[in-house]
Amino acid sequence: MTQKITNFAVDRDRIWADIMALAAITDPGAPYTRRSFSPLFLEGRRWLERRFAEAGLTTRIDTVGNLIGRLEGTDPKAGTIIVGSHSDTVPSGGRFDGIAGVAAGLEIARVLRERGPALRHALEVVDFLAEEPSEYGLSCIGSRGMSGKLTPAQLDYADPQGEKLRQALTRVGGDAERLAEARRCDIRAAFELHIEQGTVLESGKLDIGLVTAIVGITRIEVLFEGAAGHAGATPMHKRRDALVAAARLIDRVKQLADAFAEGGEGYFVATTGVIEARPNASNVIPGAARLVIEARSERRELMLAFRERLEVESLAIAQGAGVERTRCETLSDTSPSDCDDSLRGLLRAGAQTLGLGFTDIASGAGHDTAFLSQIAPAAMIFIPCKAGLSHCPEEWSEPEEMAAGTAVIFEAVLAFDRGDA
Amino acid sequence: MTQKITNFAVDRDRIWADIMALAAITDPGAPYTRRSFSPLFLEGRRWLERRFAEAGLTTRIDTVGNLIGRLEGTDPKAGTIIVGSHSDTVPSGGRFDGIAGVAAGLEIARVLRERGPALRHALEVVDFLAEEPSEYGLSCIGSRGMSGKLTPAQLDYADPQGEKLRQALTRVGGDAERLAEARRCDIRAAFELHIEQGTVLESGKLDIGLVTAIVGITRIEVLFEGAAGHAGATPMHKRRDALVAAARLIDRVKQLADAFAEGGEGYFVATTGVIEARPNASNVIPGAARLVIEARSERRELMLAFRERLEVESLAIAQGAGVERTRCETLSDTSPSDCDDSLRGLLRAGAQTLGLGFTDIASGAGHDTAFLSQIAPAAMIFIPCKAGLSHCPEEWSEPEEMAAGTAVIFEAVLAFDRGDA
Repeated sequence: MTQKITNFAVDRDRIWADIMALAAITDPGAPYTRRSFSPLFLEGRRWLERRFAEAGLTTRIDTVGNLIGRLEGTDPKAGTIIVGSHSDTVPSGGRFDGIAGVAAGLEIARVLRERGPALRHALEVVDFLAEEPSEYGLSCIGSRGMSGKLTPAQLDYADPQGEKLRQALTRVGGDAERLAEARRCDIRAAFELHIEQGTVLESGKLDIGLVTAIVGITRIEVLFEGAAGHAGATPMHKRRDALVAAARLIDRVKQLADAFAEGGEGYFVATTGVIEARPNASNVIPGAARLVIEARSERRELMLAFRERLEVESLAIAQGAGVERTRCETLSDTSPSDCDDSLRGLLRAGAQTLGLGFTDIASGAGHDTAFLSQIAPAAMIFIPCKAGLSHCPEEWSEPEEMAAGTAVIFEAVLAFDRGDA
Repeated sequence: MTQKITNFAVDRDRIWADIMALAAITDPGAPYTRRSFSPLFLEGRRWLERRFAEAGLTTRIDTVGNLIGRLEGTDPKAGTIIVGSHSDTVPSGGRFDGIAGVAAGLEIARVLRERGPALRHALEVVDFLAEEPSEYGLSCIGSRGMSGKLTPAQLDYADPQGEKLRQALTRVGGDAERLAEARRCDIRAAFELHIEQGTVLESGKLDIGLVTAIVGITRIEVLFEGAAGHAGATPMHKRRDALVAAARLIDRVKQLADAFAEGGEGYFVATTGVIEARPNASNVIPGAARLVIEARSERRELMLAFRERLEVESLAIAQGAGVERTRCETLSDTSPSDCDDSLRGLLRAGAQTLGLGFTDIASGAGHDTAFLSQIAPAAMIFIPCKAGLSHCPEEWSEPEEMAAGTAVIFEAVLAFDRGDA
């Protein structure tokens, strides 16, 4: 960041103060923790609601538990522009993941109300409910609900204490019986600012990532079963070692992912994050080994091609290692979500106007925008975060970086309202 | 097994009855469990002591807790022949591992006392204390003690309740203050019968394995450390995935072990039995991965060569995967123990005389004989066990197989006493 900062329409210090104030509402034993549906989360929301009101916004909670601050537009028929993200965190998370996007929306509304211009569209600042995986086994609950994708079956998901999501929604001010009312048809544009959670911007000394798409995620469980045996008395040629097969597949996943990523057809990553060997004792040949493999891409075709290769190669590896591949099952699967090209154009123009460095970038993480994009033109930007660290207390962005991102969305909101898109 | 059985000098049914009677002394909730130092173990020993006495043996417990039944020889200066193994089990173990060798010794003593010939040497049937890994973190306590290898430091090892081994020894009839008295100088030959715990004999339809050596065991802990990171937001080329390095080493361990085993220079196996990835979550790139690798061989040179290759290759793999190999440490290390050639010759002659099928075989598991071989000529034989299963309730050998093995040791004892060795 350079001298450009002072020219921003938005107030760097005010944004920063909001982020730090919300960060202070945390489990003191595990900063920074504000788990969705928890008393601390509700305390954070009360603080946010006051700040929304102080900014002159009309606040409400919709039936799926999103906290919304609204600034009416001059044309009641023009529809709504949304700027938002989420205020919940993972356990021992950071101060920026989610909060940054809510603070950006709040600052934009504040500036518009203080200095104008008055927008034709209504502007809504949204704190989407429970973007992070919640205790109810579901993430993006609020944005899911706002786009009509929250199902009655999901309302029956329960937390470890047995409370159902439908009850929890009521507890935070929603109303599961009126689920359909949360589904919006009036949104004309949705913007989100988020920290990158990676190092592309930092290492490229860039200010803004213009998100091309939010990756789809497929999670696959693979189980190899061989024969446990005495690690001393079983000669090498008589072994059916399930861990050897698992190890070969882990290496193969890495090789395939490297090739897919280098293929130039779109962002692609794959990870073996989970491994469990049984019995996992030094003197016993592993009789079983379980892997959870995850592939993410902005291109559905790449995800499907990877899934197919995994199917074929895991079988071949099992055969080569003399074990059985007794499972190769998709645990979950979502499709990539493209960001809206027109809105991306406005964001790019804003970054150019402000003299910022920017790049196209795929989002490897899921975000509320992925759901919003199903009912409205939606786009998001990334700002740099230190060393790519996220979901940990060390998560960090600079005040200038936050202000620059907020200013870019501010420019895009103005341009969209003018009809530049 | 064929018609040969009826010719054995030993009594098949009597041996079998002993094994089954001792098996019945078990934790009823987890058959077959008779953990060393436990009340059930001591109950088993009281039963054994009675059977020793009924066979006309003088019984005693030495200062390291071995139960010994002795039949004096005709020449007080000739020294002692030992036949024994152990009566303790692993949790939920089998009926044969250990017990078979004690029952064989008892039957041999019984036949000698009943029908002769009177031996020049004294014969001792030994139930070695705690061959299996005990609650005190030590295995082969009795045979270790009898060969002068039990150290004062080891006597301070404590069980999870805080009882020290020195106290536990007193509790089972030993005396840690008189440790040195257990060290024997009078043993001229030591024999042990044990189930194979593998499938070489079964698949070769053989009756007897003439053990060439008991493998040495090296256990090595390897730790790779990279960088945990977001499984979506970290591009493939920026990853430092510790699990990928671990996977490559697991595969390499398998390849090296195959090559060493096929090299024809002696029995060799290596196993990666333990793997732990951190944080082991599907959406996080593993930042650390720990392996425990075990190599066993009858040839010390092979163990050392493997250790050296592991050192070099684990470093190269770490470098290739962009991670650090922060640990490559030997957790434990024992040398192989050769069985005595003369005694092996007597055992082979015995098997030939009895018309049995036999083969040379290395013992991949540790045994009391490994310690006995350090103070006296010692040798052991294997008998087949079903499907190689051991350390589990399904552990099984046939009555005829037990009798054949006992008969081979009986022939070897007679031959040794005659001076054939």
